[in-house]
Amino acid sequence: MQWYLVASLLTILTSSQGILTTLSMTNGRYRYDYATVPFLAEVFKLLVSSYLLWKEIQKSPPPKMSTDWKSVRLFPIPSIIYLIHNNVQFATLLYVGASTYQIMGNLKIVTTGILFRLFLRRKLSNLQWMAIVLLAVGTTMSQVKGCGEASCDSLFSAPIQGYMFGILSACISALAGIYTEFLMKKNDDTLYWQNVQLYTFGAIFNMARLLLDDFRNEFEKGPWWQRLFKGYSFTTWLVVLNLGSTGLLVSWLMKYADNIVKVYSTSMAMPLTMVLSLFLFDFRPTLQLFLGIVVCMMSLHMYFSPPSMLIELPKMLNEDSESLLEVYVDQRTVTSGEYLKAS
Amino acid sequence: MQWYLVASLLTILTSSQGILTTLSMTNGRYRYDYATVPFLAEVFKLLVSSYLLWKEIQKSPPPKMSTDWKSVRLFPIPSIIYLIHNNVQFATLLYVGASTYQIMGNLKIVTTGILFRLFLRRKLSNLQWMAIVLLAVGTTMSQVKGCGEASCDSLFSAPIQGYMFGILSACISALAGIYTEFLMKKNDDTLYWQNVQLYTFGAIFNMARLLLDDFRNEFEKGPWWQRLFKGYSFTTWLVVLNLGSTGLLVSWLMKYADNIVKVYSTSMAMPLTMVLSLFLFDFRPTLQLFLGIVVCMMSLHMYFSPPSMLIELPKMLNEDSESLLEVYVDQRTVTSGEYLKAS
Repeated sequence: MQWYLVASLLTILTSSQGILTTLSMTNGRYRYDYATVPFLAEVFKLLVSSYLLWKEIQKSPPPKMSTDWKSVRLFPIPSIIYLIHNNVQFATLLYVGASTYQIMGNLKIVTTGILFRLFLRRKLSNLQWMAIVLLAVGTTMSQVKGCGEASCDSLFSAPIQGYMFGILSACISALAGIYTEFLMKKNDDTLYWQNVQLYTFGAIFNMARLLLDDFRNEFEKGPWWQRLFKGYSFTTWLVVLNLGSTGLLVSWLMKYADNIVKVYSTSMAMPLTMVLSLFLFDFRPTLQLFLGIVVCMMSLHMYFSPPSMLIELPKMLNEDSESLLEVYVDQRTVTSGEYLKAS
Repeated sequence: MQWYLVASLLTILTSSQGILTTLSMTNGRYRYDYATVPFLAEVFKLLVSSYLLWKEIQKSPPPKMSTDWKSVRLFPIPSIIYLIHNNVQFATLLYVGASTYQIMGNLKIVTTGILFRLFLRRKLSNLQWMAIVLLAVGTTMSQVKGCGEASCDSLFSAPIQGYMFGILSACISALAGIYTEFLMKKNDDTLYWQNVQLYTFGAIFNMARLLLDDFRNEFEKGPWWQRLFKGYSFTTWLVVLNLGSTGLLVSWLMKYADNIVKVYSTSMAMPLTMVLSLFLFDFRPTLQLFLGIVVCMMSLHMYFSPPSMLIELPKMLNEDSESLLEVYVDQRTVTSGEYLKAS
């Protein structure tokens, strides 16, 4: 499977996620407990991965699976990072409004690039760095509140703590992605076995969170398992399926592509969602949405196009430059191969 | 003189133009006839160029000057194009509001790129095309009306004629620049002689326009020469000097650099003006201004940086690639040389 097909599918599914979630509401409110959705998505991912692993085990040769504690103990860490992230997110929202929070979320694109460079030691060209910054600018632009819109909290008026927590949140969120990529690529274990470990811990942590919420609310709404399917409509199930599927695609990308590809997929979903909303929810188009989309497209082109397509090499050297490009591509492959060996 | 120094100076002067014009107003109104300013600026440019030409003529060898009618007759054409442009501008403003007009003005950046390619046959790399589009997007972004701002005319609500005239206006405006570049580069006449011809016709056409306005208003405010210095303050003279100087710098760039350099210089002035306005006029900073500036900076970097700075060439070929770049730069010089010979 080609990575860009998986990435495109992820963009479409991520984009439908927002739309399905809106459609699953009745009169602007959830008639089900939204906190149960991520748990069910983890269970869905676990079931799919277990089935695929079982099928693979029956083939010969059997897939590679590291089952020693030294390897397994690394898999709860993403769940722990997400747990910390949730709390930082909560702290951020104490200081800043929802729309400022959403805007600051785009910082994650840049922090992912930085951690990608620092922790995974992956080199990016100047042009690729610029593309990453432009992606963040483009998605932010598309979210800028239009002239005459109702809620109007200024981005520059939150207390300094709000911005500090926002930056921290962007770093932790990026760290989760970078760590997962490290985990998936650190050995040549089969993806399904890695997924089974990841999602088992994911399901456990999600369950623990639901239980903790119950204790916090002193079981006002009963234990979580009683709320599990309550008020679920067909659309709610689609939300669960969708969230689960995007998770599986992200895992695949972490193993066979990288964090930047994932960031592009999910970021491009933002403007796509808005364009779809224009048709579905009578959303009013804004100039900033249009400009944001143009910038995102340029960024995509800048990051992924082969250099020869962007910068024309002199004609008299065309043949040389083609062979030069082959070497360039080869070297990239070698670099990622070395990376796999080294870690 | 290096072109980037001239270009930077043009950016600063263009930016001060807006600020000086605002400062020259009393209680938000002009106490002088603004239409007289461009005429005086033409006269200023004519005087400066005549003086410089006179100094050059005294040197030996004397500068090259084509005085045959076949050459001279090409110099009123820019003035004629600007005259047509003024009328199209007027027609556009019948259909669209001032802020939509201002936003559409950024189209000029893209049309200049297109006419630059079509008429001057200058090749741009894909990356440079992207940079030009991004410059237009960046300047537009910085002008997007913020949440809660007073005047709120929607960009998408003007009649179709408004957009047609807007596009036409952008094309004519670009054509004036492209034609001037052609004029300045078509032979190796000294810049000052070319300027003297250009500004003589410029002054004549400006005078004719003032006279035409007088006839239209049936000499209600008296003939234009009586209004010439009426109500002029020190700041008004600075506006005249500034407008004249920017014109001289543009001429220089047209001869020794090109239209794209000029477009960058004047476009970068827009966000600079806004930043300066933050301090001078208590202008409220917006997120879109910040994002617009980031995009403009990226665009600048993308257009003018040498490819080797943007895209790292493989290490093992570093030496080759450096010599390859030298050839690349050489070829560019040769191309513009050939262009000069051909036209």
